[in-house]
Amino acid sequence: MTQSRKAVVLLSGGLDSATVLAMAQAEGFLCHTVSFDYGQRHRAELDAAAKLARQSAVAEHKVITLGLGGMGGSALTDESLAVPESPQAGIPVTYVPARNTVFLALALGWAEVLDARDIFIGVNAVDYSGYPDCRPAFIEAFERMANLATRAGVEGEGFRIRAPLQDMSKAQIIEAGQRLGLDYSLTVSCYQADSQGRACGRCDSCRLRTAGFAAAGVVDPTLYRPE
Amino acid sequence: MTQSRKAVVLLSGGLDSATVLAMAQAEGFLCHTVSFDYGQRHRAELDAAAKLARQSAVAEHKVITLGLGGMGGSALTDESLAVPESPQAGIPVTYVPARNTVFLALALGWAEVLDARDIFIGVNAVDYSGYPDCRPAFIEAFERMANLATRAGVEGEGFRIRAPLQDMSKAQIIEAGQRLGLDYSLTVSCYQADSQGRACGRCDSCRLRTAGFAAAGVVDPTLYRPE
Repeated sequence: MTQSRKAVVLLSGGLDSATVLAMAQAEGFLCHTVSFDYGQRHRAELDAAAKLARQSAVAEHKVITLGLGGMGGSALTDESLAVPESPQAGIPVTYVPARNTVFLALALGWAEVLDARDIFIGVNAVDYSGYPDCRPAFIEAFERMANLATRAGVEGEGFRIRAPLQDMSKAQIIEAGQRLGLDYSLTVSCYQADSQGRACGRCDSCRLRTAGFAAAGVVDPTLYRPE
Repeated sequence: MTQSRKAVVLLSGGLDSATVLAMAQAEGFLCHTVSFDYGQRHRAELDAAAKLARQSAVAEHKVITLGLGGMGGSALTDESLAVPESPQAGIPVTYVPARNTVFLALALGWAEVLDARDIFIGVNAVDYSGYPDCRPAFIEAFERMANLATRAGVEGEGFRIRAPLQDMSKAQIIEAGQRLGLDYSLTVSCYQADSQGRACGRCDSCRLRTAGFAAAGVVDPTLYRPE
């Protein structure tokens, strides 16, 4: 594989997508990263993504702004819904309607413009927190749809939606990132991190992250805010 | 069907989507319309959509803003590419990468929040101008993906992507709209309409529209700008 083979990598600034970026670069891809500003509460993620992109010397980092016009429907964008701090049954209120569908659709458009064929996303089905759009069946259905939707899919080689974390536990993800030299202190996972990127330590995302570092036997570099 | 059954209707302000809105209302749906501001040149469409929504007394009209960060790739958003004024072979330069995928994904998110299950889109395969994301195979693949992507698709009744114009010619669409009392002077189809909504009469979209009115034997209410 030549260095000039391009990929689009969804980069949220969290632990998972940062690991995916390191993996894609290790495979030799020239990475174009994209973050989405959709009015999420956890805006520290966007800063973390930009910093990660810079430190990883990606080809280009783009922030796509989505003005959803107060569509609501999720605790991650709607101030009137509380972020839960104990495990919930079923699909959680932090689920953002059709989020990965929207993100992948926009990444697909950019990939087509760039003439990239690989789109990387950091979903995983083990620690997937109950989101339906993190499951392998969704990723496969999206890829199939993408190759019917686009000029490149119809006339050319077709797109691959790459989800290398699909079957990995949080601990395995952290171990993989460590082997690739990833500095996890640059990443922010918390759903309600403060403006300095300090985590709450209590939300779903913090709990998965903390448990992951413990299970991997790696010192947790996360900056938690004082109680 | 009760009046309270909700639908999301993609409303561009053009002839096709206006007809779809009239059809969905005739079926008894409480319609929520959505337009997308993605930096398109033909901004007169957005004004036409808002006016149509108002005159049709829809439940809610939303404009979703997409800040694509200069992604480019289409004559409809990129000022450096000319809008062609004669028929072109293959997929035209006015193709916007993954546009219908992005629009449907955002409509899907809104439908899930609203608890609507029907999403209407005005694509049609006869006069489809060479866009791959207007074909029936794409619509079917999107619907399948949508029902794997969402809480409502997984836990509930599932979404239907409705493309009632799919097999209609432009003339048949115009005839259907006329029967439903639609005032086509409110719609704008031109890819390079001026600020007053006056059409060029020469682009692909204008040519299809003009020929459609002629074939339907209906007086063309389009306002063309002077040469």
